[in-house]
Amino acid sequence: MGATRELSGFAAQTTFQQLPPEVVRESKRAVLNYLGVALGACRHEAVRILTAIAEDAGGHPVATLFGSGIKTSAVQAATVNGAMSHVLDYDDTHLDTVIHPTGPVLSAALPLAEWKCLGGKDLLAALAVGAEVEIRIGSAVYPAHYDVGWHITGTVGTFGAAAAAGKLLDLTPDRMAHAFGLAGTQAAGLREMFGYMAKSYHVGKAAANGLSSALLAQRGFTASPQVLEAKRGFCAVLSDRYDLSRALEGLGERYLFLENGLKPYACGVVTHPTIDGMRALRKKHGVTAGDVAEIELRVHPLVLELTGKQQPRTGLEGKFSIYFCAAIALIEGNARESQFSDANVNRPEVIALMEKVRPIVDAGVRESQAIITLRTVDGMELKERVEAASGTPRNPLSDADLLDKFMDLTLPVLPRDRAEQLVEEVSHLDEVTDLSRLIALTKAEC
Amino acid sequence: MGATRELSGFAAQTTFQQLPPEVVRESKRAVLNYLGVALGACRHEAVRILTAIAEDAGGHPVATLFGSGIKTSAVQAATVNGAMSHVLDYDDTHLDTVIHPTGPVLSAALPLAEWKCLGGKDLLAALAVGAEVEIRIGSAVYPAHYDVGWHITGTVGTFGAAAAAGKLLDLTPDRMAHAFGLAGTQAAGLREMFGYMAKSYHVGKAAANGLSSALLAQRGFTASPQVLEAKRGFCAVLSDRYDLSRALEGLGERYLFLENGLKPYACGVVTHPTIDGMRALRKKHGVTAGDVAEIELRVHPLVLELTGKQQPRTGLEGKFSIYFCAAIALIEGNARESQFSDANVNRPEVIALMEKVRPIVDAGVRESQAIITLRTVDGMELKERVEAASGTPRNPLSDADLLDKFMDLTLPVLPRDRAEQLVEEVSHLDEVTDLSRLIALTKAEC
Repeated sequence: MGATRELSGFAAQTTFQQLPPEVVRESKRAVLNYLGVALGACRHEAVRILTAIAEDAGGHPVATLFGSGIKTSAVQAATVNGAMSHVLDYDDTHLDTVIHPTGPVLSAALPLAEWKCLGGKDLLAALAVGAEVEIRIGSAVYPAHYDVGWHITGTVGTFGAAAAAGKLLDLTPDRMAHAFGLAGTQAAGLREMFGYMAKSYHVGKAAANGLSSALLAQRGFTASPQVLEAKRGFCAVLSDRYDLSRALEGLGERYLFLENGLKPYACGVVTHPTIDGMRALRKKHGVTAGDVAEIELRVHPLVLELTGKQQPRTGLEGKFSIYFCAAIALIEGNARESQFSDANVNRPEVIALMEKVRPIVDAGVRESQAIITLRTVDGMELKERVEAASGTPRNPLSDADLLDKFMDLTLPVLPRDRAEQLVEEVSHLDEVTDLSRLIALTKAEC
Repeated sequence: MGATRELSGFAAQTTFQQLPPEVVRESKRAVLNYLGVALGACRHEAVRILTAIAEDAGGHPVATLFGSGIKTSAVQAATVNGAMSHVLDYDDTHLDTVIHPTGPVLSAALPLAEWKCLGGKDLLAALAVGAEVEIRIGSAVYPAHYDVGWHITGTVGTFGAAAAAGKLLDLTPDRMAHAFGLAGTQAAGLREMFGYMAKSYHVGKAAANGLSSALLAQRGFTASPQVLEAKRGFCAVLSDRYDLSRALEGLGERYLFLENGLKPYACGVVTHPTIDGMRALRKKHGVTAGDVAEIELRVHPLVLELTGKQQPRTGLEGKFSIYFCAAIALIEGNARESQFSDANVNRPEVIALMEKVRPIVDAGVRESQAIITLRTVDGMELKERVEAASGTPRNPLSDADLLDKFMDLTLPVLPRDRAEQLVEEVSHLDEVTDLSRLIALTKAEC
């Protein structure tokens, strides 16, 4: 049996009851994180445009757009909600493949579950299975596939979305293999789009195309059922090297989705160890901006490559500035979406502190590490060493921090009681038989 | 100025008035050919499924599906009509790049023109400009891009569709460049899907994704405006080698779309020289099946690789059999869609003649050539040498043959007077200010 058929069989045949409890738990956390980052982006210009396009097109009102509450077709809801979940670059990350697993998968599954009146168990099984398929295919082609220039969340996300949607539609393993074929032949998304709205569109399209693949396969539409392993299949064409055994190893026994991480901070993942360290210094020693003479950061080389902006002018630019991230973490004690405002970036106190930050690239420091030496104006030297940044598998985001993140993202657009109801609804999602209450709570002031 | 901006400028700024008359003429012929091959496929199972999916989704009724006449959103009409135009593998071909240019481009342009109440001149300009962009980008990446495993009509078709739709929406050159970026980051379609319904879906999705790209760009959605030339852009990521100077050479002066060919026969293009030759022998010498002792065919090596099936069982398999193609061309004097029936493939007279066909591969024979030696039962030897198969640029399909092809395809589903009205409407398309009459005529008995 080929890899496509093995993975499609796994997707078609795995039931909610077979999921290990920790997978169910992580799936619920992923749902809450997803709803937070999507709702937090609901006022973004990219979302406004995509919503207008969906309204122009119309469609039977069977699925809901987050924020606006507009009802449209499931495929269009997948597009808009998927993009919304990625706009802030604050979604979950499977670090070994740099895939953001939940966006494409849940953005396909939730509109379909709403349309077909399915329940929480169905949704969680679809998410767990879809994310697992997505991460496993990603593992087979990473890093060559990413190095070539593919935005891996856009490409393998299409398979994950097809698997989740096919699961909800109860496809046979054979039809699921055709759905995978249709997904693989639509897989797309170039890293060249990083920095443009198109990047978040990749996630929406992965969700929509994967959902369409499952809907087509359900009706007997055919595609190559060897899309992964074929000589001119997805892996061979979109990657210089690949190893499908990595996709199949321990399938159904070990869940790679458990290595998913939830970002604690609303900025590039390479800045996170530094932010952790600055928060620790603030908490342990009560350091304030006025105390600081110099902050020396020993960091991984990617930190300056990706987040080296010395004089950010906007909140968005602040996300790509290790200087701002370090400064604001000390001053406000966090680096959530609300910290990355234009006002904060231009505050004299923040600018003064940014000028005292001195990053030093050190190839001996790993991506999840940072070594901070803070010298105070009265000659003290405080050290903080971060080994595993929070939100990475070895130091997962606590439930309390996830809740804080969710509230920080949603309170600007949701009344507190609705945000709390949404948290409550997700916390017992596996007992929810009717998703309409949860979906109604995603209407926000956008 | 980069290649993306040069091509987007060409697409945005070229007007109908600037098109050379021969480009307008070829565009009209391409429209007629397109409508014929689409309507001829309107009863196909793949089309039935795609139509059901579109009906399930709904949408404001602004654009028409060929055949069924169902009205839906423009993007959904692009998907269904695009797939319909490719199902029979009988569409137009730019031989130097093996692109089928009109399908993706016109399937985006016509629903949009219908929605926005535009006229025939707008539609023809959109087709000419879109096809030109598509073929030129294809020329830059062919053959490496195709050899890797990409279905080039699916990939570069997305750019063509975006250019045509952007033209109809009157995008500025800058917004057109963003539309190209969105098109390039959605470009997809694997050759692995050949032989499955997914192949025709590529054309529908290229049309739909290109159209979406233009609609998004119109509203200010952003993408990389260097999608072609960027280090990690479309060309570098989807092709081992490319040369963008080929895309730009003579842009606006020379139209590569003029090298487009219209298939005269409803089967693999490599069989066409043989069919031409058999028809000539029949016409010149009045040869019938009963006269034949042996038919020796000296042909290009690809003929046996692609169409070597000796005992086809169905009409579809007959399309991949040089034996059947040669036999039916002599017996019925043609090889159109109606010749490729299950009944014809199983007729004793046809089977008897197929057994007398002897193809000989000859590396000295070009793809557009065939050398036929027909030996009769009474010892005569008739020779026929075909230099340039009909439907290739050096021997274009005549208007009369195009009309015959159109009628052969449409009469099974359209009353003759409606088919004739459609021909009439296309023949003066540049004078049509309201496309609704033409569109109404595409409703057929499907």
